[in-house]
Amino acid sequence: MNSCGRIFRLHILGESHGPGVGVVIDGCPAGLPLGPDDFAADLERRRPRGAGGTPRRETDRPRLLSGWWRGHTTGAPLALWIDNGDVDSSAYDELEHLPRPGHADLVARRKYGGFNDPRGGGHFSGRLTAPLVAAGVVAKKLLAGVDITARVLEVGGERDFTEAVARAREEGDSLGGLVECVARGVPAGLGEPFFDSLESLLAHLLFSLGGVRGVEFGTGFASAHLRGSECNDPLVDTAGRTASNHAGGINGGISNGNPLVLRVAFKPPSSIAREQHTVDLRSGEITTLKVGGRHDACIALRAPVIVEACCACVLVDLMLLAGRLPPVLPRRDG
Amino acid sequence: MNSCGRIFRLHILGESHGPGVGVVIDGCPAGLPLGPDDFAADLERRRPRGAGGTPRRETDRPRLLSGWWRGHTTGAPLALWIDNGDVDSSAYDELEHLPRPGHADLVARRKYGGFNDPRGGGHFSGRLTAPLVAAGVVAKKLLAGVDITARVLEVGGERDFTEAVARAREEGDSLGGLVECVARGVPAGLGEPFFDSLESLLAHLLFSLGGVRGVEFGTGFASAHLRGSECNDPLVDTAGRTASNHAGGINGGISNGNPLVLRVAFKPPSSIAREQHTVDLRSGEITTLKVGGRHDACIALRAPVIVEACCACVLVDLMLLAGRLPPVLPRRDG
Amino acid sequence: MNSCGRIFRLHILGESHGPGVGVVIDGCPAGLPLGPDDFAADLERRRPRGAGGTPRRETDRPRLLSGWWRGHTTGAPLALWIDNGDVDSSAYDELEHLPRPGHADLVARRKYGGFNDPRGGGHFSGRLTAPLVAAGVVAKKLLAGVDITARVLEVGGERDFTEAVARAREEGDSLGGLVECVARGVPAGLGEPFFDSLESLLAHLLFSLGGVRGVEFGTGFASAHLRGSECNDPLVDTAGRTASNHAGGINGGISNGNPLVLRVAFKPPSSIAREQHTVDLRSGEITTLKVGGRHDACIALRAPVIVEACCACVLVDLMLLAGRLPPVLPRRDG
Amino acid sequence: MNSCGRIFRLHILGESHGPGVGVVIDGCPAGLPLGPDDFAADLERRRPRGAGGTPRRETDRPRLLSGWWRGHTTGAPLALWIDNGDVDSSAYDELEHLPRPGHADLVARRKYGGFNDPRGGGHFSGRLTAPLVAAGVVAKKLLAGVDITARVLEVGGERDFTEAVARAREEGDSLGGLVECVARGVPAGLGEPFFDSLESLLAHLLFSLGGVRGVEFGTGFASAHLRGSECNDPLVDTAGRTASNHAGGINGGISNGNPLVLRVAFKPPSSIAREQHTVDLRSGEITTLKVGGRHDACIALRAPVIVEACCACVLVDLMLLAGRLPPVLPRRDG
Repeated sequence: MNSCGRIFRLHILGESHGPGVGVVIDGCPAGLPLGPDDFAADLERRRPRGAGGTPRRETDRPRLLSGWWRGHTTGAPLALWIDNGDVDSSAYDELEHLPRPGHADLVARRKYGGFNDPRGGGHFSGRLTAPLVAAGVVAKKLLAGVDITARVLEVGGERDFTEAVARAREEGDSLGGLVECVARGVPAGLGEPFFDSLESLLAHLLFSLGGVRGVEFGTGFASAHLRGSECNDPLVDTAGRTASNHAGGINGGISNGNPLVLRVAFKPPSSIAREQHTVDLRSGEITTLKVGGRHDACIALRAPVIVEACCACVLVDLMLLAGRLPPVLPRRDG
Repeated sequence: MNSCGRIFRLHILGESHGPGVGVVIDGCPAGLPLGPDDFAADLERRRPRGAGGTPRRETDRPRLLSGWWRGHTTGAPLALWIDNGDVDSSAYDELEHLPRPGHADLVARRKYGGFNDPRGGGHFSGRLTAPLVAAGVVAKKLLAGVDITARVLEVGGERDFTEAVARAREEGDSLGGLVECVARGVPAGLGEPFFDSLESLLAHLLFSLGGVRGVEFGTGFASAHLRGSECNDPLVDTAGRTASNHAGGINGGISNGNPLVLRVAFKPPSSIAREQHTVDLRSGEITTLKVGGRHDACIALRAPVIVEACCACVLVDLMLLAGRLPPVLPRRDG
Repeated sequence: MNSCGRIFRLHILGESHGPGVGVVIDGCPAGLPLGPDDFAADLERRRPRGAGGTPRRETDRPRLLSGWWRGHTTGAPLALWIDNGDVDSSAYDELEHLPRPGHADLVARRKYGGFNDPRGGGHFSGRLTAPLVAAGVVAKKLLAGVDITARVLEVGGERDFTEAVARAREEGDSLGGLVECVARGVPAGLGEPFFDSLESLLAHLLFSLGGVRGVEFGTGFASAHLRGSECNDPLVDTAGRTASNHAGGINGGISNGNPLVLRVAFKPPSSIAREQHTVDLRSGEITTLKVGGRHDACIALRAPVIVEACCACVLVDLMLLAGRLPPVLPRRDG
Repeated sequence: MNSCGRIFRLHILGESHGPGVGVVIDGCPAGLPLGPDDFAADLERRRPRGAGGTPRRETDRPRLLSGWWRGHTTGAPLALWIDNGDVDSSAYDELEHLPRPGHADLVARRKYGGFNDPRGGGHFSGRLTAPLVAAGVVAKKLLAGVDITARVLEVGGERDFTEAVARAREEGDSLGGLVECVARGVPAGLGEPFFDSLESLLAHLLFSLGGVRGVEFGTGFASAHLRGSECNDPLVDTAGRTASNHAGGINGGISNGNPLVLRVAFKPPSSIAREQHTVDLRSGEITTLKVGGRHDACIALRAPVIVEACCACVLVDLMLLAGRLPPVLPRRDG
């Protein structure tokens, strides 16, 4: 299903080398001031940068095709569309019968009977995160008073990773990385025990991102090594503030008012300029493949703004559900 | 929302100290042979055991209230209900104004305006996993040819953990743990890139379990330390078998036919028989609390069958969606 | 799917001759005062009465299995269960191979491969409207200020129909009827243009009732005979009141604040004590059938409270969506 | 919610006088041969014609923005977009404070706090049926063996209505009409008792069309005048064929294999070139209004292809759910 959310609902569409990529946001409150320029900063953060990114030049300026009039959202479905420019599909021609290891090439071919658009990964491309980031911009604007900030914690296992990225790129290799996101100002009471815990909804969206292999909240996997007497967060006031935050701001699937903390593990990108073994789908023989084209050495570097977008969209949906965001924003004059 | 799934849909209900707990399964194929005895083995596995479990005696034999006739599912909503017996709510009376650290007590009270049933955690209780396990039994019976097996990997950071659990219990403390689940025989092609990746659907369900702090697939968080040349799984045949399985059986959100591998991190149970700090909701003053009653020293010990149930339910749903399970099973005569 | 609604969600279950029938209401606001006695009046209205009803004695007193504590809803899924008493399945034994004309017998058998419970219509029974009425009771209690009243307009084409019903029953026949429902006090703004118009949501629920063959709003089918100059409702104030109400209180799929008016056409019950032609499923030969057992001569007579329930449930859902009903009700002291 | 369907899901978007209108179809089987020319015939049928239609020239040729490659659907979300050309919004400027009787002007203004795009009705415009028709084209192509044909039964109460339409147009007035749709070749077994009866799903979609005031199946409202002995359809073979078809091809909410028959009542269009009373939203005074611009004298004339589209989309969804349409179509060579 290309949809997520119950009230603030995202529908995502497009392919890497087709006409473009986009998102339709249903249930966006009416009256949000919005313009094409609002997307620039976050889409720029998503763009490949420095040594770790792909040289592909993406000029991503969404057009507002629906649900927008006179500088505000109207309450009708909000459609954001980003044209695909600068597309070179030639590098993918030779790959038709040589599925790239670690990629969705082979499963997509099987799932869709070979009808899928394989160019640039098609609908599986990381390019689909551009409309997600655009949706995140809308969500963040709706979340007055909530600050969502993600950052790269480490790359290839190192906290100071600039050099490691450059080295991997030189060697035609790629690196995994870890991203942490903290949301401050999240009201208590968002999420439900079954089945829509706050963790469930966030993880659902985060695990739909390509390359994500793990998601954890608060102390996360390290909690498994702790004792209850160490892991419980002592309450310090009736508002629910806690002395520690091992829970990452969530109890019983529900936000508790303390900072929401989560971490996302990204695997190294699969496309590398080194020889790898694969199978030729025509002959069935094992052969080698060296993926050409332009690729990221580390997608984690571009991921923080995408992770923020996922969090923001989930939080807006839950705040609408809880009646903490109105379906029509108050008019701002002057 | 108390529902999950698109075709094989679970609705969960009940409280720890109310009349009982149950699950309604909508979309279960007609014609599945089923009886009350089918649930015994898995519900027994969920029961507290040995040093790590709570002494509460749970005799969980589901009654089939709907969707069942002459020993088969009928195609109507299948309702499984487990009465709550052996319930002692007295231990919870004193807790009304003393929220237990690490528990949902305070957030539930706020979210539901104090109308929630707090006895035994109410709808937040681990007791709600009993109907989930029952749903898992149904799902496993539908998954002929798929083997789903979960086990405890480690407790409190140790692979040989029997003694550690006994020690924690003696000291009135609790331990976290790690559970791994492997599903073999999962057909390729299950899941979708956006937003219903196989990881998304599994994590959604797993994170609705109490005490889960992290979920990872394949090499998981360790992938973040790898290079692409290490992490990619070389293809060895046209069926998609791979030499390694860092991907945990999933590419691009879709099962690839290799074993599905995931791990779930459980924090130590919050209820411990040691003094902890909390706040008195009446006075606003910080005080201490020692949780009485019967509690698990380590929920991870009971978790494997619950994790299996989550996996089985998701897989059945996806196999129905993919047309790999029919809505009516062939009649078996004799 | 056994579910309807987006926030106030109903899941219905049970069969006519199984253990019972029930409904799980997810998303019911916490804090609604509720008790088993609240259901008596409306369930009594649903019971067969006088000459038009079946003599089956239904003692329908729901048990509250989940989501209820100390006389209030808790915010957890609210489960209402009605045991089936006084069940005599013998009349259905002979019908196994003789599908009753007008009934779901044959399609159910085919759809579910013969695994469906055919006794009393199973999950297709009119008995399933009992939990719907129970859900309607909850919804009506939530709808302070909205008055929903349905009544039988005509039976067998006649406005004064008592005698017609008695005659039909004597002759072993049955009669169709027309029910009108008016809701006053519905706030303007409920519903959406696509695809969840107010008419769409109401019709969805109403057409799931057995025997419903038509649904119309305002002037309904008669609108097709009118000219725009006759059919348009002139506005008389800025609040949106109109001089006439051909629109039945809805414009563009959205409530306009005028009374909501709809009519539902019920066909005559299919079970009649007269000889009818059917086919013997074993021999394939055409034969005759006379349905025994106890049946309604006119279901429309029992339908008003059911139609009210459908309207009430839809309106509660939309008011929650619009933020006009809070997820937690204010506490009433004293 | 701008979505309908469970597997074959439509998301609709756009406004009458914005950049365009479109539909995203999620869950469309991969491998359907499709091209922009496939839409021409049905979109031409939807266009205003002769005396009854608006003179607005609509050149509706959808662009395939997603989910389409090399002449086939790919399995990714299929996006169809129709640009709005030939738009003159000047006629709507004066209406800002004069809500048109019978229109959604006032309710939309209230629901969306005045942020809605009012030009041409915005998202409430009949223009939104163009992408629905386009979705219907896709659905019909998927429904090999099912013939869906709708036609105008009567206009303004007359079966021979050409002259009546011309007269109404001359007089600046409009007419209602009745449309009947028959689907032959629908397999038995589609639909569910609660809550997704075949009637429920069809009515849900049909009632989201502007101007629909009633929907009935088979003998419909006239059933309310019949006796059971007249209304029951005698079975004539084990396949479920019936001698009559009062049920319109549906029993218990499930298709029975006989022709599916439904009728839809359309009210006369609200926009008429005659003086009507309305209220001035600034002064609160009652005033008169004469709607300029180009409008249909009878939308029922354009409606058959739209009604067919609704039926086709529902049937495809149910056939996918029932496993009667595969998620990937077999490849057709040559």
